[in-house]
Amino acid sequence: MNAQFIVIEGLEGAGKSSAVETVKSWLSTHQQNYITTREPGGTPLAEQLRDILKYYQDEVITTQSELLLMYAARSQLVENVIKPALRQGQWVLGDRHDLSSRAYQGGGRQIPMTTLDQLRELTLGDFRPDLTLYLDIDPKVGLARAKARGDLDRIEQQQQAFFERARSVYLDEFERDQTIIKIDASLPFLMVQDMITQALDTFFSHE
Amino acid sequence: MNAQFIVIEGLEGAGKSSAVETVKSWLSTHQQNYITTREPGGTPLAEQLRDILKYYQDEVITTQSELLLMYAARSQLVENVIKPALRQGQWVLGDRHDLSSRAYQGGGRQIPMTTLDQLRELTLGDFRPDLTLYLDIDPKVGLARAKARGDLDRIEQQQQAFFERARSVYLDEFERDQTIIKIDASLPFLMVQDMITQALDTFFSHE
Repeated sequence: MNAQFIVIEGLEGAGKSSAVETVKSWLSTHQQNYITTREPGGTPLAEQLRDILKYYQDEVITTQSELLLMYAARSQLVENVIKPALRQGQWVLGDRHDLSSRAYQGGGRQIPMTTLDQLRELTLGDFRPDLTLYLDIDPKVGLARAKARGDLDRIEQQQQAFFERARSVYLDEFERDQTIIKIDASLPFLMVQDMITQALDTFFSHE
Repeated sequence: MNAQFIVIEGLEGAGKSSAVETVKSWLSTHQQNYITTREPGGTPLAEQLRDILKYYQDEVITTQSELLLMYAARSQLVENVIKPALRQGQWVLGDRHDLSSRAYQGGGRQIPMTTLDQLRELTLGDFRPDLTLYLDIDPKVGLARAKARGDLDRIEQQQQAFFERARSVYLDEFERDQTIIKIDASLPFLMVQDMITQALDTFFSHE
């Protein structure tokens, strides 16, 4: 089977890092070559933009600028890393992708979804992940976990209503897109791990 | 009269820097407070993006990313510098603005004008310069001047056809927009200077 692009999505504290490790184990078990990426980031320029997006303090970053920088970073990552890897037969495992912008900038910041659609069309054309594993969690629970982990970054310092709106977008998109699988991330880690592995086995069973 | 936003536009080597000086003299003569800006740039973050756009070499910058970074820089400049200055009664004199993106990315890079319209709407809404002085020059002449000045940057290293397309956009927009005044930049500097001063006298005669 061709190399596939798998994305892990979810709110802060949903357990994305652990999920990434679970998918990596599955890929190794199935003897697939893969690379991992993260968004925003994953190329030298995109990582520079990530630093700006997460930690810039010299100046207020406008909502529009934040959105445009996210998509600039995404364009760099997709064209310079993800597409070349897939062409060479390497699977790509991404920590966040376009769905995060739709949830955080579209839902959280309330930028119209038509704008998100336009930027997706401009930046990605019809390029999409083959599978997205969405780790669903109540923002109250997720943010408590994220806080326990350390300081929150610029975007993570939003009010809870921001994350409620982001979650709504995740759930809406899950209802409409058969390449998104929803995992209940409030369950104990071993159960989440099992569900991810089963989802991968099922989704890629034609392998 | 309220503070106004004046923009100098034109291809490389058209004489924008000299034109900026001419407008500054006119503003001083008329005892107006003003600030000068440049694009991309003009805020700490926008200047960081300018460096990336002009000199980044670690990685290919995609056409889309270039466009998005231009508009991110523009959003920062307009919201954090230009609008606050105008509100405080300071005139703003800009070396390039949105029309440059339309000419270079729309014309030069052949990104659809509908995309440029969408990004303008997202980033600027209905904010526009009060007056744009477009210095019109044959790219052959302009590029020869720019080369004589020193090394060309990443965008200036394009083929002549790129600049011919950019010029076409400038001329099209001039035909359609009464706030754009075209100056023949191939004439001797003293004549250009006179034409700019006369244009300002005429355009702001209701002062």
